Amino acid sequence: MSMTATDTLLDQDGPDKVRLSIEEARALGEQACQRLGFSAEDARIITDQLVENALRGYRFASLPRILAIQGDERSKQARKPISIVKETPVSALVDGGNNVGYVAAYRAAEIAIAKARTSGMSVVSVYDSYYSGRNAYFTEMVVNAGFVCIHTASAKPRVLPPGGVRPALGTNPFCIGFPSKNGPVIYDIGTASLMWGEVLLHARLGEPLPDGVGFDEAGRPSTNADEVIKGGVIPFAGHKGYGLSFAIQALGLLGGAARARGLVQDYAFFFIAIDPAILLEEDEFEQQMAELVARIKATPKGKGVEEIRIPGERGARERKIRARQGIVFDRAVIEALRSI
Amino acid sequence: MSMTATDTLLDQDGPDKVRLSIEEARALGEQACQRLGFSAEDARIITDQLVENALRGYRFASLPRILAIQGDERSKQARKPISIVKETPVSALVDGGNNVGYVAAYRAAEIAIAKARTSGMSVVSVYDSYYSGRNAYFTEMVVNAGFVCIHTASAKPRVLPPGGVRPALGTNPFCIGFPSKNGPVIYDIGTASLMWGEVLLHARLGEPLPDGVGFDEAGRPSTNADEVIKGGVIPFAGHKGYGLSFAIQALGLLGGAARARGLVQDYAFFFIAIDPAILLEEDEFEQQMAELVARIKATPKGKGVEEIRIPGERGARERKIRARQGIVFDRAVIEALRSI
Repeated sequence: MSMTATDTLLDQDGPDKVRLSIEEARALGEQACQRLGFSAEDARIITDQLVENALRGYRFASLPRILAIQGDERSKQARKPISIVKETPVSALVDGGNNVGYVAAYRAAEIAIAKARTSGMSVVSVYDSYYSGRNAYFTEMVVNAGFVCIHTASAKPRVLPPGGVRPALGTNPFCIGFPSKNGPVIYDIGTASLMWGEVLLHARLGEPLPDGVGFDEAGRPSTNADEVIKGGVIPFAGHKGYGLSFAIQALGLLGGAARARGLVQDYAFFFIAIDPAILLEEDEFEQQMAELVARIKATPKGKGVEEIRIPGERGARERKIRARQGIVFDRAVIEALRSI
Repeated sequence: MSMTATDTLLDQDGPDKVRLSIEEARALGEQACQRLGFSAEDARIITDQLVENALRGYRFASLPRILAIQGDERSKQARKPISIVKETPVSALVDGGNNVGYVAAYRAAEIAIAKARTSGMSVVSVYDSYYSGRNAYFTEMVVNAGFVCIHTASAKPRVLPPGGVRPALGTNPFCIGFPSKNGPVIYDIGTASLMWGEVLLHARLGEPLPDGVGFDEAGRPSTNADEVIKGGVIPFAGHKGYGLSFAIQALGLLGGAARARGLVQDYAFFFIAIDPAILLEEDEFEQQMAELVARIKATPKGKGVEEIRIPGERGARERKIRARQGIVFDRAVIEALRSI
């Protein structure tokens, strides 16, 4: 941490808060993961994402997730090494061996990068896994290797189709990333009207959910997060969001989702990587992306509008500030991690 | 037309309407296109989509588009043959030579199919083109060849970014299609809050647009379609829709959009095709897709809900009915086409 006097503090300190440097947060996370039985390598992979998430302002997608991994049923079940079960020069189907998604999707992203390097493009997917965290993290890995990346994650049912009273689709996030001369541009959304993590957080805090998005076990509208956990939420944007969620579930199937447990509504972490140089000249795309960003940011603004935002821009900006100022965590989380 | 007595008529007849069989509609469209200077082959390609669109209930994306092509500035400019300017075993960048998108995107889809056949997957894009019609048409071509297909179309600015008062993004449709044992499943949306064709139609009919979606040339909210044509519309679903539109503009750049006129906000028709057999076993995906559709359709329904819909299902169902009953066109359109 090398704060200057002119820095405005992004996150507030307090008696129930702890401020850690990146290195301190990494050490704490890796040690906690290793005490949970993860190898040093897996602990490093998991923690790297969790710290990156915190740097970008995703508090609950950060170190608290180690406690969630600890509590997850599947973490208690046997794991096998992650392995490629089918491949071609452009593709790999990967058996995640019940490893947590943080690690399984990381390995899939690595394979997608390696195959795009030799073949110009690739499709790679991993199944028999669960919870991978923030899609933009993996997408940025692929983008930093120089490739355009489409990354989707199908999951078990939590989202109701329009007209339905039971969940039939996962929260199914959708992410696309692009390299540019001025750094990665990453679009990352959930296709549920509410992130599942938000539902869990509302339940923990005993706070009501917004009207009209949640349904209980019997399919009745509910703002009670505890009830909605047993039911589900609606997709974003009505039929357009539903269809996108459906498509991501289908990409999951293409990526082996049903191989794990014979269920067509299950987890798969799916990647497409494309080397821009197979279509355009060296650096042509990266230059044009930077120009597209600049042109869109230069759109004349409405009254009172501070700036035109680009997907992923806020997180990237905050990352730089927190890298200097440190990351603020709840003291209770830190203590829980230390006592694992 | 072989209507049975038990058929309920999908579209009404009337003095200002003409009902044509598929064959009659095709002959009329192909003759009109050829009189506009298109080759017999191009006329066949254009008309095939326009008739397919009508069969699925997209009235204004059908034969009336021939009149729009006739009126388009770019149709009056010189054309060159469509040609591949760069390729690898998995990719092709295609110069559309100012040919209309109906033809250029069709050729790109054909190339995507051929390359996916030999390499397992492909990425193909065509630039220096304009208006390609309905993305699902091209996607279904690729799906019918046995491949999963992602198809996007970037265009010139018509959509305002959140906070902006000038258009900076195209209406940028997004389409994904999947083969299944029970026929193609196609998800096809525009990322604008309103299809541009709807804006044009409202202008022609002098009808007001819905509140809150349109802006005039100066960036002021407007429901006057004539004014909105000079301005633009907002994306669907706020920031989530804006980001998707942005990503499609970026995929357009990857697909050579800026090659045509040096503009980073321009047309490109972009395809990714994936052979499911490079990841799964023969027919495994097609079987599982049919099961996913069946499971989602079997979701318990809310009160008064007739059925749970699958993307593309309505159009596919109506296609079968109109193939029997014939297609109803406005008499004025038919007469205008006959007198080209």
